[in-house]
Amino acid sequence: MKWIAGGVTAARGFTAGGVSAGIKRSRKPDLALVVAEHPASAAAVFTVNRVQAAPVQISKRRLRAGAARAVLVNSGCANCMTGPDGERDAIRLGREVAHALGIPERHVLLASTGLIGRRLPVPRIARAVPRLVEQLSRASHRSAALAILTTDRLPKEAAVEVRAQGKTFRIGGMAKGAGMIAPSMATMLCVITTDAVIAPALLRGLLREATEQTFNRISVDGDMSTNDTVFALASGASGAVIRRGTPPARAFAEALRAVAGRLAKLIVVDGEGAARIMEVQVQGARTEREAQACARHVAFSPLVKTMLAGADPNVGRVAAAVGASLARFDPDRLEIFIGSHRLVARGTVLRVAKGIVRTLLTHPEVTVRINLHAGRATGRMLTCDLTKEYVDINAGYAT
Amino acid sequence: MKWIAGGVTAARGFTAGGVSAGIKRSRKPDLALVVAEHPASAAAVFTVNRVQAAPVQISKRRLRAGAARAVLVNSGCANCMTGPDGERDAIRLGREVAHALGIPERHVLLASTGLIGRRLPVPRIARAVPRLVEQLSRASHRSAALAILTTDRLPKEAAVEVRAQGKTFRIGGMAKGAGMIAPSMATMLCVITTDAVIAPALLRGLLREATEQTFNRISVDGDMSTNDTVFALASGASGAVIRRGTPPARAFAEALRAVAGRLAKLIVVDGEGAARIMEVQVQGARTEREAQACARHVAFSPLVKTMLAGADPNVGRVAAAVGASLARFDPDRLEIFIGSHRLVARGTVLRVAKGIVRTLLTHPEVTVRINLHAGRATGRMLTCDLTKEYVDINAGYAT
Repeated sequence: MKWIAGGVTAARGFTAGGVSAGIKRSRKPDLALVVAEHPASAAAVFTVNRVQAAPVQISKRRLRAGAARAVLVNSGCANCMTGPDGERDAIRLGREVAHALGIPERHVLLASTGLIGRRLPVPRIARAVPRLVEQLSRASHRSAALAILTTDRLPKEAAVEVRAQGKTFRIGGMAKGAGMIAPSMATMLCVITTDAVIAPALLRGLLREATEQTFNRISVDGDMSTNDTVFALASGASGAVIRRGTPPARAFAEALRAVAGRLAKLIVVDGEGAARIMEVQVQGARTEREAQACARHVAFSPLVKTMLAGADPNVGRVAAAVGASLARFDPDRLEIFIGSHRLVARGTVLRVAKGIVRTLLTHPEVTVRINLHAGRATGRMLTCDLTKEYVDINAGYAT
Repeated sequence: MKWIAGGVTAARGFTAGGVSAGIKRSRKPDLALVVAEHPASAAAVFTVNRVQAAPVQISKRRLRAGAARAVLVNSGCANCMTGPDGERDAIRLGREVAHALGIPERHVLLASTGLIGRRLPVPRIARAVPRLVEQLSRASHRSAALAILTTDRLPKEAAVEVRAQGKTFRIGGMAKGAGMIAPSMATMLCVITTDAVIAPALLRGLLREATEQTFNRISVDGDMSTNDTVFALASGASGAVIRRGTPPARAFAEALRAVAGRLAKLIVVDGEGAARIMEVQVQGARTEREAQACARHVAFSPLVKTMLAGADPNVGRVAAAVGASLARFDPDRLEIFIGSHRLVARGTVLRVAKGIVRTLLTHPEVTVRINLHAGRATGRMLTCDLTKEYVDINAGYAT
C-alpha cells in the first residue's frame, strides 16, 4: 500500500466538482457532487442519533439496493428538523441531479451539513446543479473537498494505491469535520471511492469495521450530530476483485482503514479552535469495552482538554477522568505516561519538574498512555485541546 | 419552613472558623473547621470516582460508627494520588485537631480540595490549627465558608428553620464548587449541620436522597472529582426528634433538600466562567432513567453550553443532544421550549424571530423544556454556559 495524491477521484471511474450555490451567505463553495461513470456498488454508515436529517433518511432508503451513481453534498444547511417540507426539498434536489446526469433518481445519494432547523434554498441550488455537472472532472476533487466544509479550516483528502495478486486498486476520499465530533459519528461527512470490484454487502461490512476503528475513535467536543454519514462507492474500474476472506480482502480492509484513519486524524487536527491533538492510549484494561470507555472519558474531559490547551502540568485531571469512567481497576496500580515520561506510578503522582511536563504538553501531537494494570485489553481515542477559539466559534454559529 | 441567615452554624451546637494556613500561595483563607459541642450523629455521601483522595478514604472509615465532633477542610491541595505519604499527612492533621480540641481522633472528619498530586504542607497546617481552634465561634461561619473555596468567586451558605410538632429545628450548610462539577458529585465539598435529633442511619438515608435530587443534578463541566464529599452532622441541641416515617421526618427531608438545593444552585451560578445558568427540564420520557439521561446529555453538551454563552439561537443543538441520549422517542413528536416560547413542534424547528430567541437566551436563568411525548417520566438538570473564561481558568490552573 502506498499513499498517493488526490482524494475522492483518485480511484478510476469517478469525477467530482464543487461550486457556490449561495447556501452560505459568505458565497464560499457549498455544493459538491461525486459521480460514478457507471452504477457503483455502494454502502454507508450513518449517525445513530435519534434525530436524523432528511438526506440521511432518504440515502438510507436508497442504499438498500446497494447501488449508486452520484453523491450530492451541501454545506451551510443541515436540512434537519425541517419536517415533511425538508424531505420534499431533498428529493427535489436529488431529482435535479438525476435529470442533469441522465440517471435514475434512486441512484442519487444525499448529505447535508450546517445549521439545523433551516430550509434549503431549493431554487438557488437547483439553478447551480447544471453548472456543477458541467464542472465535473477527475481533476476537481479539491473543489469538491472545499465545498463540503463548514467551520473547517482545511480540506481533508486522502488516497492510497494497493497492489494485491497482480492487480492494482485505489481507495480515496474526502471528509469534513470540525465541530460536533464524537464517537458514534458526528457532523462528519465523508465520501470514499474505490475502483476495486466489491459487492455491496462486503463493502458495507468493511466500511463498518473501518469506521469503528477510525471515525468512531475521535472526539472534538463529545457531541453527536444528526447528519453524520460515511459513503463508500466502488466503481470496479480497476478489475481488482475483492472476495470475502481472501488476501485482497485483507489488503482492501487495511487500505480502507488507512484512508478513513487519515481523514479522521485530519478532522481532529482541524477541530474547532484546536491548537494540538492528543492520542489517549489505554492499556491493561479488563475488557475492550472498558478500555474504550476509559479512553473516551479522558478524551471527553473538558478539564483534560483545557489542560492540553494551556500546556498546564495537571496530570491529576487525567487520573480523575480515568477514575470516573466505567473501567474497573485498582487505583493503587494506576500508571500514566505523557509522551515517554512516566508521571504517575502506583497511583501516586511522581515528582517531575513542571518545565518537563509543560514541554511534553506543547508537542503538536501529545500521547497520554494509561495503564490500568487490570487486564490485557486496550483502547484508543484521538482528541484535541479545548481553546477559547472553540467557544468563540460556537457562541456565535447561528448569528 | 423558613429561610434564615447564617450557614454551617445556623443550627445550635456548632461553631466554625477559617484561617489562612499558607497552603495557597495567595495567602487567602484555606483551612476551615466545623466543631460540634458534643458528639454528633454523622453521615456522608462521597464521590464514586475510583480514584479517591486520602481524606475521603479516612473519613469513610471513621463514619462507620456514625458519630463525629469535627470536620477539617482545606482548600489549595486535594491530597489525592499522594500514596501512603498522603494518607499519613491527613491522619497527622486529624490528630493535631483532635489534640487541640481534646477529642478522640476518630471523631475528626477530613476533606481536601485543590490540586491533585501535591503533598499537603503539614508543618504549616499543624502550626495553624491552634489559631483556627481559637477563632471558633457561632459567628464565624462565613470565615469557614470562605476558607473552603478554590476558583469559586463567592462563598456558598444556606440555612432554614423548621417548626414540626411543636419543636423548632434548623438545618444549615456551606459548600464549595466551581469546576469539575457533574452528577455523581464533583470537586464539591459541603458540610451540613442540624440541631435535630436524628439517628445516623436515617440521616444517611435522607442525605443520600437529598444529594440525588440536588448535587447530583448539577453540571458545570461534566467532570467528576476525586474528593467530593457532603457531610451532615446532627447535634440534637433543638430537642426536635426525627423518626422514620413521621411528619417531622418528611419536614426534615424537605428542609434538607431545600438547603442542599440552594447550595447546589449557588455552585452552578458560580460555575467557572459562568455568565448565566440553564435549567434543563425533560418531560414525557418513557422512564425516569431515560428522562434523567436526556437532561444530562443536554446539560453536558458543549455546543448547547456555548450556544447559551453566546445567546445564539441554535435550538437544533438541543435536539441533537436529545437525540444522542439514551432516551427513546419518536423524533417527529419532539417539542422544545425555551422559556415560555415553543421553538420546536412535531420535530420541526418553528419560525421564531431570532431577536426573540436571543432575548430568551440572555435571561440570567434560562429554562429549556423538552417534551419527548413518549411517556410520563420527568428529569431535571441545572447547568451553566461554557465561556472563554472557563478555558482561561482551566488552561492555567496548575501554573
